[in-house]
Amino acid sequence: MIGLMTPVDFSEMECSVARTLETIGDRWTILILRDAFYGVRRFEDFRGDLGVASNILTDRLQKLVDREILEKRQYEERPPRYEYRLTEKGQELLPVILTMMKWGDRWANSGSTPPVTLTHTTCGHVTEPVVTCSQCGEELRRRDLRAHPITVRGGNPSGELARAETS
Amino acid sequence: MIGLMTPVDFSEMECSVARTLETIGDRWTILILRDAFYGVRRFEDFRGDLGVASNILTDRLQKLVDREILEKRQYEERPPRYEYRLTEKGQELLPVILTMMKWGDRWANSGSTPPVTLTHTTCGHVTEPVVTCSQCGEELRRRDLRAHPITVRGGNPSGELARAETS
Repeated sequence: MIGLMTPVDFSEMECSVARTLETIGDRWTILILRDAFYGVRRFEDFRGDLGVASNILTDRLQKLVDREILEKRQYEERPPRYEYRLTEKGQELLPVILTMMKWGDRWANSGSTPPVTLTHTTCGHVTEPVVTCSQCGEELRRRDLRAHPITVRGGNPSGELARAETS
Repeated sequence: MIGLMTPVDFSEMECSVARTLETIGDRWTILILRDAFYGVRRFEDFRGDLGVASNILTDRLQKLVDREILEKRQYEERPPRYEYRLTEKGQELLPVILTMMKWGDRWANSGSTPPVTLTHTTCGHVTEPVVTCSQCGEELRRRDLRAHPITVRGGNPSGELARAETS
């Protein structure tokens, strides 16, 4: 999973968390993605909403296109205008955005503004994302997970994500 | 949720995704967290596993302590030695790590090394995280979510996370 005891750079790390970070680790990038999930598609709308400098926005949008997270499509010929849409690869980042939103609501919300709420139209209720097991449907908790292979120095050799607290 | 049309910095953005990024947005930080979830607790183990320079590791660990994600505890008096353990606030980042891992397995895995698999001891099966509705238990899909309030310029005023594709 990760290089043992020798210095490595992120791109060499055989770890999916590291590789995901390579793609979305930049702050502007993930805020652009968040806006894309809200339906923003046009350069001027991203720029106006985020208050980001044009050169930075151009760079981050191009990187997202290069990484096949966004697709650039022409929607007008004269003058030529383009919009940016989430690809399937991009759309599958929704769980990452949703879990970050939930954590931030609980632990990093200043309380001065009500957080965004999400309504699940399937059941009609205000919803929170819950991360569950693909096999049994129960919520995934750290104490019930084992990782294999586990090659982290100092990590529990059994791959246990939680270790018994002794204090 | 976010400042409209005026430049803002991240710390002023009234958005839980932005605030979560403020806490975990740095790449080393999230790799330290990943190792913490695998049971790594000691400075030398983090350093050896990640191949990170000591001054960077010291800085990131201290920031995680300042943000109450990790707790620093003395486990030996002579010589004084400390370990770093996830707080409740830190443990609740597990869903973010799990969803990043799943996305990376599918979309950012080089294929040269088998990805880490997770076994759910509750049911005994190899599991994948699925993000589901806290109310009805169905998987959350973009087309079934509406956000309120939605104040993103260029976003769909209904708060629809997915818009009908017309092409």
